[in-house]
Amino acid sequence: MARGRSAKILVQHVETGGGAPRVTRQPDEVIVEEPLEIHLDGHLVTTTMRTPGDDFELAAGLCFTDGLLAGAGVTGCRYCGDCGSAMDTEFNVVTVETGGQAPTPTPRVATTTSSCGLCGSASIDSLRQRLRPLHDLTPIAFDVLAAAPARTRKAQPLFDATGAVHAAAAFTADGETLVLREDIGRHNAVDKVVGRLLFDGRLPANDLGLYISGRASFEIVQKAWAAGFAAVVAVSAPSNLAVETARAAGLTLAGFARDGRMNVYS
Amino acid sequence: MARGRSAKILVQHVETGGGAPRVTRQPDEVIVEEPLEIHLDGHLVTTTMRTPGDDFELAAGLCFTDGLLAGAGVTGCRYCGDCGSAMDTEFNVVTVETGGQAPTPTPRVATTTSSCGLCGSASIDSLRQRLRPLHDLTPIAFDVLAAAPARTRKAQPLFDATGAVHAAAAFTADGETLVLREDIGRHNAVDKVVGRLLFDGRLPANDLGLYISGRASFEIVQKAWAAGFAAVVAVSAPSNLAVETARAAGLTLAGFARDGRMNVYS
Repeated sequence: MARGRSAKILVQHVETGGGAPRVTRQPDEVIVEEPLEIHLDGHLVTTTMRTPGDDFELAAGLCFTDGLLAGAGVTGCRYCGDCGSAMDTEFNVVTVETGGQAPTPTPRVATTTSSCGLCGSASIDSLRQRLRPLHDLTPIAFDVLAAAPARTRKAQPLFDATGAVHAAAAFTADGETLVLREDIGRHNAVDKVVGRLLFDGRLPANDLGLYISGRASFEIVQKAWAAGFAAVVAVSAPSNLAVETARAAGLTLAGFARDGRMNVYS
Repeated sequence: MARGRSAKILVQHVETGGGAPRVTRQPDEVIVEEPLEIHLDGHLVTTTMRTPGDDFELAAGLCFTDGLLAGAGVTGCRYCGDCGSAMDTEFNVVTVETGGQAPTPTPRVATTTSSCGLCGSASIDSLRQRLRPLHDLTPIAFDVLAAAPARTRKAQPLFDATGAVHAAAAFTADGETLVLREDIGRHNAVDKVVGRLLFDGRLPANDLGLYISGRASFEIVQKAWAAGFAAVVAVSAPSNLAVETARAAGLTLAGFARDGRMNVYS
């Protein structure tokens, strides 16, 4: 596990029930959360609270899934040591470079979202203007989709350490996990997976499924649509807007995937 | 349950294991997710993806916890029917009014966050400039804190219907639930609770605990600090930044509250 993604602290462990609470001091490992400022060709795009690690993948993936690259290729990513940042923050600023090929990002007015990512401009109609319905998707069998949670759970070191971190994974129709990323934020984990696939020349991901450890909100499905995934499988429930977005995209959306059972919403 | 907070759809229920997957069509209820545009005295503050309902509480609570009111009182909230919105969106725009007493909000550059709310400007130091360490807090006994999840779980109609929605609740030192709100986003649920307490003249909440159904991130603790809660109890884990923020604020932070057990981090 990379350094600095979790931190050990001393906590009071409390047990109640039957008399006075019993309190013991114990070491505990918590997930690290730090801001990352993302720039595109020198222009501020956004700031996200994330778990450090795979920062270039996160930055490039976010620019891709938000449609900011507009077809431009990423020529490089670097930490911004010369942005006037102090030493302790230089790894919290990343610049994605396209050699000026990407259009200048227009700063959106601040958007806070229930699960983040694109919002504000959020509507399926606006997505339809940017993204076409998916086609030539490789069908992924129901049993491969339903097995995604158990398969992914086996390889989550940060979850093992902290007991609470989201995961996203790209997997093949054969059930092989290609990329798995963990982050305190679901949308960050998805962006890290998409960024890795982008760097590997594996987009569009029309032969891959995307697993996420939590709920499927609008923006998770929007990111999957942008990356061209054939299917999205969530451990928990989708929202109505997520279902409608998946139907507009033409991708398979499954939720409540647990113990070999799941619901298929589109 | 208010109309329009969940929606019924038909899904394919899949069971795998032992031969071909068995597929049946079943009705399912999913949580509704829609954008809400929040204005303060006519100035756009932010757009959030939320579950409709208690929109005035959400808007006022967000302005309060983000420090935008700066001590000004809320004189009214209304849906913005005359903002040129089409009929179907008029309930997705809310204006919080202070009669111009609140300073003009400066549009922050877009921030996407792992769990949303304040970020971008995110640092404990910046919070320290805005918020003072809490004092005169009513201690809340460990057994009252540890019992919060089970107590709150009994009164979550949206969770019962959809199986996946966050909850936040304010409770007294005697273990009485004062306000409980559900939303697709954790930070929205907290803002709705704080907005209700604001309308009821119950802030600062220095004699109350705040329960949240998920993890405790930086911004959840920041909101609790702004509202003056004596304690925060989360079902899942806090991040390192959440722990540090709680210590700076001087409030009690408990996590992994399950089955009468919990960890106390500050």
